[in-house]
Amino acid sequence: MNDITFASMQNDLLLRTARGEKVERPPVWLMRQAGRILPEYHALREKVNGFKALVENAELVCEVTLQPVKALGVDAAILFSDILVIPEAMGLPYQMIESKGPWFEKTIDEKKDIDKLKIAEADDLQFVMEGVKLIKKELNNTIPLIGFAGAPWTIFAYMTEGKGSKTFSKARTFLYREPEAAHNLLNKITDSTINYLQGQIISGVDIIQLFDSWAGILSPQQYKEFSLPYIERICNAIPAVPKIVFPKGAYFALEDFAKINCDVIGLDWNMDILNSKKIIGAEKVLQGNLDPCLLFADVNRIKKETIKMLSDFGGKHIANLGHGVYPDTPLDGVRCFIDAIKGFNY
Amino acid sequence: MNDITFASMQNDLLLRTARGEKVERPPVWLMRQAGRILPEYHALREKVNGFKALVENAELVCEVTLQPVKALGVDAAILFSDILVIPEAMGLPYQMIESKGPWFEKTIDEKKDIDKLKIAEADDLQFVMEGVKLIKKELNNTIPLIGFAGAPWTIFAYMTEGKGSKTFSKARTFLYREPEAAHNLLNKITDSTINYLQGQIISGVDIIQLFDSWAGILSPQQYKEFSLPYIERICNAIPAVPKIVFPKGAYFALEDFAKINCDVIGLDWNMDILNSKKIIGAEKVLQGNLDPCLLFADVNRIKKETIKMLSDFGGKHIANLGHGVYPDTPLDGVRCFIDAIKGFNY
Repeated sequence: MNDITFASMQNDLLLRTARGEKVERPPVWLMRQAGRILPEYHALREKVNGFKALVENAELVCEVTLQPVKALGVDAAILFSDILVIPEAMGLPYQMIESKGPWFEKTIDEKKDIDKLKIAEADDLQFVMEGVKLIKKELNNTIPLIGFAGAPWTIFAYMTEGKGSKTFSKARTFLYREPEAAHNLLNKITDSTINYLQGQIISGVDIIQLFDSWAGILSPQQYKEFSLPYIERICNAIPAVPKIVFPKGAYFALEDFAKINCDVIGLDWNMDILNSKKIIGAEKVLQGNLDPCLLFADVNRIKKETIKMLSDFGGKHIANLGHGVYPDTPLDGVRCFIDAIKGFNY
Repeated sequence: MNDITFASMQNDLLLRTARGEKVERPPVWLMRQAGRILPEYHALREKVNGFKALVENAELVCEVTLQPVKALGVDAAILFSDILVIPEAMGLPYQMIESKGPWFEKTIDEKKDIDKLKIAEADDLQFVMEGVKLIKKELNNTIPLIGFAGAPWTIFAYMTEGKGSKTFSKARTFLYREPEAAHNLLNKITDSTINYLQGQIISGVDIIQLFDSWAGILSPQQYKEFSLPYIERICNAIPAVPKIVFPKGAYFALEDFAKINCDVIGLDWNMDILNSKKIIGAEKVLQGNLDPCLLFADVNRIKKETIKMLSDFGGKHIANLGHGVYPDTPLDGVRCFIDAIKGFNY
């Protein structure tokens, strides 16, 4: 099924690159391209009652996903959604509090809280599945659609901490105090995530990304025990499409990621390109990693630094920022970044 | 002067270790040991009008500094103060807002804001100098006193951002947009910091630590340009006492720190001990790096992990956490950590 899709896609640069093929130039998309950087997103947000009302409405999901495709000319669309739909589908609802972030009224504090959680099924997230189908129809095989989920450790961090945090000390303490219960919860999240991603793929996504946004707050030992094995299990369970992993801050685990069954490893802007290539080796495709702050600089500087980055990666590379684009980024800076990549030739 | 002080100090384990001497066991202190982990600190806080009223009162500074010495039996006292006294002494006042953190009413936005700032002198911070003298008198040569300052980049980050931030995107954007002005400001902060630390040394501190708390949000290139050279300049300007640098998150710069004129490099809990030793080499003493969350675990686990850490460092090591101790850490966990170190023998 997927081969037919690929064969007829107008711009399949991202998929060819992710599969390790030699390409004419790097493909480009931006983490968080669908959302707050675009005025048309803000216009739409004003008409609906909160962030979750957007995420839970398949037609609006489709509209927001396509906004950056039209406005910026990126080489891929990424599903507009939230990693926290998974805890909610497992039975732990959350609120998105304006200018504060996610907040869980109830958190996972002990074993019996975990027992009450269900394994989420794709059917529990119909608004996502319907959204993917609508997007695919609208995209009409012009560019690929990226599906995504949070990595299990990152989801675990929110479910135990209950909100965003600089240190996630409650979540990390759980790992030390209740390692067995932690693995139990991580397994439930992993099973739910596999069901969810398989649903996204059946609905039409062409490639997936796992966001391990809070990878960088774990010690190397804890990361190896509580995050990496679950990402690996998800990658092994999803043979149908290429897989991107983005372990933000986990520089200490790049060597391990080189060995697991993923196709692309995302680098953040702290990670030195040449050094990361040396650690990871030539097997994997890399993604990233311009400092999102650079898009606030003048266009000459953006162009120069973007081209330097492309040269440093030197192939097997999906161009992106090293983190989600910041909400107040000037669109001229974003366009300059994209244009520099589209004008580049290996 | 200092040699006489060292010679007569009852417990000079920290100083001997920092100077690279062979010692019987690692010395131990905790970042943020003076402050919110102790009930006697909270009792004192209730009697004064806000955090800054404590910091600006030499007698209270002395009292808070000595609290963990009495309560925990650490091998060193660290001056109780705030890194942001420097911006204030330069002419940029701040408020410490309860449960929110520091807030600057005016921030540094452009060149002319920098021109208005003065270079701080030790005399501008008399409450610190008086505090140091009182502490030294009270310590009466039992254990050494650690002085400290923020590294220039970290101070710059607060002065331009105006408050704490996950991304410090305003501060980092300043570096890209106005690199020359940024260097100008960093030089002024560096000059102020040298005056400040020299004042602390004249007043009696035995060793100093530079906290580069926001090192880890810069790209490796930016760190080399906007942080490292200023830390190096401070280290070169302070020959009188041993110098500890703590570049939190700057794993990418450990090789560079190995080459500068500091005595001790602090590791955070993300940094793998054996790998860091390989990168840094045998010249420098290392400090750190137990995950602060481990102190919430049961005592057997704390003891086991602490001893593993001590063995992994294996000498030339000042035992500490990999970050400041978290405010709600159980004191039994802290004591277990300290006892495990005091009972250790090389």
